[in-house]
Amino acid sequence: MSTLLHLDASPRNDRSHSRRLSAFFVQQWLERHPSDTVLYRDLRVFTPPHVTEDWIAGAFSPPDQRSPQLRQALQLSDLLIDEFMSADVYVFGVPMSNFAAPAVFKAYIDNIVRVGRTFLYVPDDAAAPYKPLVHGKRMFVLVSSGAAGYAPTGPMWPLNHLEPHLRSIFGFIGVSDVTFIYAGNDMSGGEKLESAINEALAQIRKTVRTAA
Amino acid sequence: MSTLLHLDASPRNDRSHSRRLSAFFVQQWLERHPSDTVLYRDLRVFTPPHVTEDWIAGAFSPPDQRSPQLRQALQLSDLLIDEFMSADVYVFGVPMSNFAAPAVFKAYIDNIVRVGRTFLYVPDDAAAPYKPLVHGKRMFVLVSSGAAGYAPTGPMWPLNHLEPHLRSIFGFIGVSDVTFIYAGNDMSGGEKLESAINEALAQIRKTVRTAA
Repeated sequence: MSTLLHLDASPRNDRSHSRRLSAFFVQQWLERHPSDTVLYRDLRVFTPPHVTEDWIAGAFSPPDQRSPQLRQALQLSDLLIDEFMSADVYVFGVPMSNFAAPAVFKAYIDNIVRVGRTFLYVPDDAAAPYKPLVHGKRMFVLVSSGAAGYAPTGPMWPLNHLEPHLRSIFGFIGVSDVTFIYAGNDMSGGEKLESAINEALAQIRKTVRTAA
Repeated sequence: MSTLLHLDASPRNDRSHSRRLSAFFVQQWLERHPSDTVLYRDLRVFTPPHVTEDWIAGAFSPPDQRSPQLRQALQLSDLLIDEFMSADVYVFGVPMSNFAAPAVFKAYIDNIVRVGRTFLYVPDDAAAPYKPLVHGKRMFVLVSSGAAGYAPTGPMWPLNHLEPHLRSIFGFIGVSDVTFIYAGNDMSGGEKLESAINEALAQIRKTVRTAA
């Protein structure tokens, strides 16, 4: 039995396509694994705070030497990391926002990529001072976008700074099994959008069938 | 006479290296152009809010048809865009954070990249529906980082998702004259850091001499 972390990053609520895709993914998954556990995190209502000077000072202090102020600065990061580590499968609904993830999702990343928790820094090992601490996870990222063609084979791929960045940073902490599914054409709307969404839903169905 | 927009994105204050670089850039610039105007924006204290559903609805409504609620949602975006448009030269101090810009700087981008203000959307022009609205600006981005080698010729370049993203998104709104200057080795500290900072300061001096 697995634990899924279902997370949505869209500022939109009902009108969000990435939310529709992530919800569909989880629903399909649960049809195959009805007793799996789902954790849900909505960054529209739970906004991770930006990293602060105290956050950095706290992260680089040994846990037993942190002042109450530094512990406080890490409190929400602790919560998000505990949640992240307790899941086996990540299902993230992330809209393309200005060729990258929305700021609120970057704030999430900045909170969970933390020395001593999700990676180690070993200065003595000059060849490879950074060691990932996350192992055996799978990640699925459902991306909606205004334009079409952001997938690796599409014409907008050179402007897709979301997938390459997420592959780098999640790979850095040890999550390298990452699948991206795209639905474009939000700006066009109408039939083009409907067909893009339907293709993405079909791809999700297929992905879950293979993965679950 | 020019107007400089000097902006800092580091969560650190005194200990920030990107702040030291951006301050040095502005100081060098003013030695050559003492009567230029400097606007200063510190994202550590002025944190741009994340884009919301009302923000998006407001941005895509004609200005004279916005409800008070939608106008309110765009208020800080208006402020940041007015400031951005009024400057001729951008001097941005941005630390590398998890292989990209910090979330707070992405939040800044998400606030200033706005339809009808910094770009136009012309759906009838299917070949090029997006038109930049920012012209004749120059941008200098001073980047500090934990590791070294993030410049295009360095070994960390494949993990540098900051420069490619910023070139894409600022190019999208019409700012294509962008120069990046890097100072790495914050994690190493000591002499390595001092030498990286000194190299960056020398590069800034040279850049200002050529540009100003």
